[in-house]
Amino acid sequence: MIDYRNLDCTESFAELKARKPFDIKNNLCAERIEKSTIREAGSLCYNYAAMPVDETIIDSLQKLADEQQLIEKYKALLSGEVMNTGEKRLVLHQLTRGRALDGLRVMADGVEKGDFYEGELAKIKDFSEKVRNGQIKGSTGKQIKTVVQIGIGGSDLGPRALCYALNLIGPEDGCTKKLQARFISNVDPDDACAVLEGLDLESTLFILVSKSGTTQETLANRDLVFKVMENSGIKGLVPQKHVVAVTSNTSPLANNPDILAVFFMDDYIGGRYSATSPVGGVILSLTYGFDVFRKILDGAHAEDKAALESDIRKNGTLMDAMIGVYLRNVLGYPYTAVLPYSQSLHRMPAHFQQLDMESNGKHVNRFGKLISYQTGPVIFGEPGTNGQHSFYQLLHQGTDIVPMQFIGFRKKEGNLDAVNGGSDSQTKLKANLVAQIVAFACGKDNAENPNKAFEGGRPSSVLVADRLDPFILGAILAHFENKVMFQGFAWNINSFDQEGVQLGKILAKKVLAGCEGDGKLLAYSNLLGIEL
Amino acid sequence: MIDYRNLDCTESFAELKARKPFDIKNNLCAERIEKSTIREAGSLCYNYAAMPVDETIIDSLQKLADEQQLIEKYKALLSGEVMNTGEKRLVLHQLTRGRALDGLRVMADGVEKGDFYEGELAKIKDFSEKVRNGQIKGSTGKQIKTVVQIGIGGSDLGPRALCYALNLIGPEDGCTKKLQARFISNVDPDDACAVLEGLDLESTLFILVSKSGTTQETLANRDLVFKVMENSGIKGLVPQKHVVAVTSNTSPLANNPDILAVFFMDDYIGGRYSATSPVGGVILSLTYGFDVFRKILDGAHAEDKAALESDIRKNGTLMDAMIGVYLRNVLGYPYTAVLPYSQSLHRMPAHFQQLDMESNGKHVNRFGKLISYQTGPVIFGEPGTNGQHSFYQLLHQGTDIVPMQFIGFRKKEGNLDAVNGGSDSQTKLKANLVAQIVAFACGKDNAENPNKAFEGGRPSSVLVADRLDPFILGAILAHFENKVMFQGFAWNINSFDQEGVQLGKILAKKVLAGCEGDGKLLAYSNLLGIEL
Repeated sequence: MIDYRNLDCTESFAELKARKPFDIKNNLCAERIEKSTIREAGSLCYNYAAMPVDETIIDSLQKLADEQQLIEKYKALLSGEVMNTGEKRLVLHQLTRGRALDGLRVMADGVEKGDFYEGELAKIKDFSEKVRNGQIKGSTGKQIKTVVQIGIGGSDLGPRALCYALNLIGPEDGCTKKLQARFISNVDPDDACAVLEGLDLESTLFILVSKSGTTQETLANRDLVFKVMENSGIKGLVPQKHVVAVTSNTSPLANNPDILAVFFMDDYIGGRYSATSPVGGVILSLTYGFDVFRKILDGAHAEDKAALESDIRKNGTLMDAMIGVYLRNVLGYPYTAVLPYSQSLHRMPAHFQQLDMESNGKHVNRFGKLISYQTGPVIFGEPGTNGQHSFYQLLHQGTDIVPMQFIGFRKKEGNLDAVNGGSDSQTKLKANLVAQIVAFACGKDNAENPNKAFEGGRPSSVLVADRLDPFILGAILAHFENKVMFQGFAWNINSFDQEGVQLGKILAKKVLAGCEGDGKLLAYSNLLGIEL
Repeated sequence: MIDYRNLDCTESFAELKARKPFDIKNNLCAERIEKSTIREAGSLCYNYAAMPVDETIIDSLQKLADEQQLIEKYKALLSGEVMNTGEKRLVLHQLTRGRALDGLRVMADGVEKGDFYEGELAKIKDFSEKVRNGQIKGSTGKQIKTVVQIGIGGSDLGPRALCYALNLIGPEDGCTKKLQARFISNVDPDDACAVLEGLDLESTLFILVSKSGTTQETLANRDLVFKVMENSGIKGLVPQKHVVAVTSNTSPLANNPDILAVFFMDDYIGGRYSATSPVGGVILSLTYGFDVFRKILDGAHAEDKAALESDIRKNGTLMDAMIGVYLRNVLGYPYTAVLPYSQSLHRMPAHFQQLDMESNGKHVNRFGKLISYQTGPVIFGEPGTNGQHSFYQLLHQGTDIVPMQFIGFRKKEGNLDAVNGGSDSQTKLKANLVAQIVAFACGKDNAENPNKAFEGGRPSSVLVADRLDPFILGAILAHFENKVMFQGFAWNINSFDQEGVQLGKILAKKVLAGCEGDGKLLAYSNLLGIEL
């Protein structure tokens, strides 16, 4: 029987608070580093040697996972229980990549959802192949060379981060041809303006992505694009033959004659969890081919299965999640830096920032009651080594401790490298990652000159894989999704709604309607020069 | 006489701690919003109505500025005093845009530095015009169409953010022709690989940027680029005719026959403050024309002058800085979100993150003594409205308060917009900004459903200008630079060194040299598959 209680009602939380954190500065050693690796999907592994946890603390983290029934709750979620309590919805994003529980059948809205998602996948495969091989062309007969996703939030950050990440893959990853992928998200008209500048409209396909079909930004950008197409003066250009949609089957975009094709998602896939649904699937399949998208799904699926393990010492995602709770609620750190040592992952921190902060930035528990402990931290990050020449100064010598989550790969993704000063660039990249982990953990005393001293004791973990290929990318994505889910269960919050976005929407409408006598809105409107 | 003391030795700090923060939730009103605007350079203004400060607190902030002699210290810095105490260097980045103090002459290294910077500007003007009008061509006779900056940290983030920001300017801003600007920064070979893919080498000019001329990443990327050029098989392609350098006159790059032209910066310009030196000037002048770069300098210069005002109520930068100290040291907030409502500023938060965290993430005072209060906060951010569909959930309803610094513009930068649902996109963008400020400050109660309640009391300020043009861009840049400087003075730290980056460099070298028997480095090297 599953039972829901707040974090501060568990025995393990009291235990954790009573324990002394493990002193990584003085006790990090080769043996610990070697012992602290957990294998996940494929070559992906999680190493937590530089985290302030010893076996006793890990025992308590295991107990926390058990007391809060994290694996049972995960299984309940997979089985189609209503885990998004506020909105009374199932949570099925894992099902978009496969059935993590054998024989799992999930009925909702009169259909079996696994079959439904597979049906959409088949549509994506068919459509993307026809566009890529030229069976489906633009309205003036040109082959499609560029795809532009119009969406915001979850319809933008995840798909964009994944598209950028695979930028350098080639035939060995199943990608024999690449289309150009672009993105328009912001309601700021300068966003669309910059993307449309110099674009060959005749060979461009737009993907309109909005679950509700009513997202203000996305509709405004659709109209901007239509206007540009209509004003282009290109003979024979028919805008609707250049637009497909990803939406739910109840949305105004669902049966729209002005659209070439429609792919469906549903209410059981939150925007920030939708990268493996058609929201990410259409653009990834068009850009790199369906086989590449299938590998992303396979990696995510393998990771979803690995996350079912109840022994924390064999489940890297669970370990990562519970260490995060320890850092947040026992040690009191209000942020975590996500630091991929891979330029291709340069927008992944922005996606994980959304995933984590939108899911777990909550002040009530899943029953809507205020809670008295802290929930999700602030997430930020940039790729290394770039960050080393920027904000790492504060991470090393600032007055506060910022926990870090590194990501590194043994091999490069592309096919270019050169030796300089005895080593190639990929080796330098990895050497810097190794150096940073040890520098943060162990520091360096300097009694004579405190300005050159490093206090150390800065905790970090590292996710390592052989190479950033589509499978591993999917696995990394799922690792973070599932980490956030486990933490939400531990905090007893609903990680799947986002009521915090509503007030701003209401007030923005009020401003656009003339502020309705609200002096504050009016005064700021005047400052910004809003004329209606 | 200038006197340096720690923040906690001032009377005003004790006063500030004793005061009750102003309750913005219940007291934000039209009159306060109208009264709380400070004009800065050009149309730029700073509004702090939604910050938790009343007139009494502002009096104490003024007293803090006076006690810590912020304006005097700024003038001393401008006059060429050795403000970078650790490295025993002058701090002269403001001088790269003009003499903020009338009649100012700054002698160093046997030259007058204002003249020196002007001389380099003249070189940039001449060179960039010759490249743009085709007098200087690539080695095979093709006109230069793309410029690629190779640099990291300060040699990358600022110039890149400024280049992206001006992406949509046109003839009305003095820009009649645009070259394409690209950037290679990371030692990750995939970074260079992605930029070089599909580049026409014959029409590309590379700008190598490294003050010391020894930056590991930059030299590695230079060698990658040379290798690609040498292996290109293009007849007549001479790599050295496609490379210029920005460096100091003592660097190995200074007198290098393998380079087409050299532009000088010096030790008195920190990397993160170098965007208005040749580090930013060469690429901006090549991309948009020297006149555009000159306008950026003019905006920054006007802002530098505005920051000389000693009355905090007339100096937006000083007010912003002192409110920041109040938020950090009295109210205890460990972070600040920088949120531009302008897609063109999408990389500006990353630059300000470097500027702030690398400058003020310090644990010792300017005399090298440990301090007992907190210094620089964590800085992060993404453009609005995008962030509204992402991490704003936590900002609205998370368990912690995150202060925010908004940036907004009355007019769009580009020339595209369309009406949808009764308003154009630029108006929607501004309406959202207005709505967010008020929503964060005032919240909305909901006793029946706490999940739909907004606690409010979330402080924010907003920088507003007419339009993002080169002058305003320069002014915004200088606003943040000078804010960081004032805060550093208030905290009595040296904002101009970065000893925190050293340990990582040393350990990375050790890894590349085989770890020298360090078991920890070796164990992580094995994990990452480092083979030497």
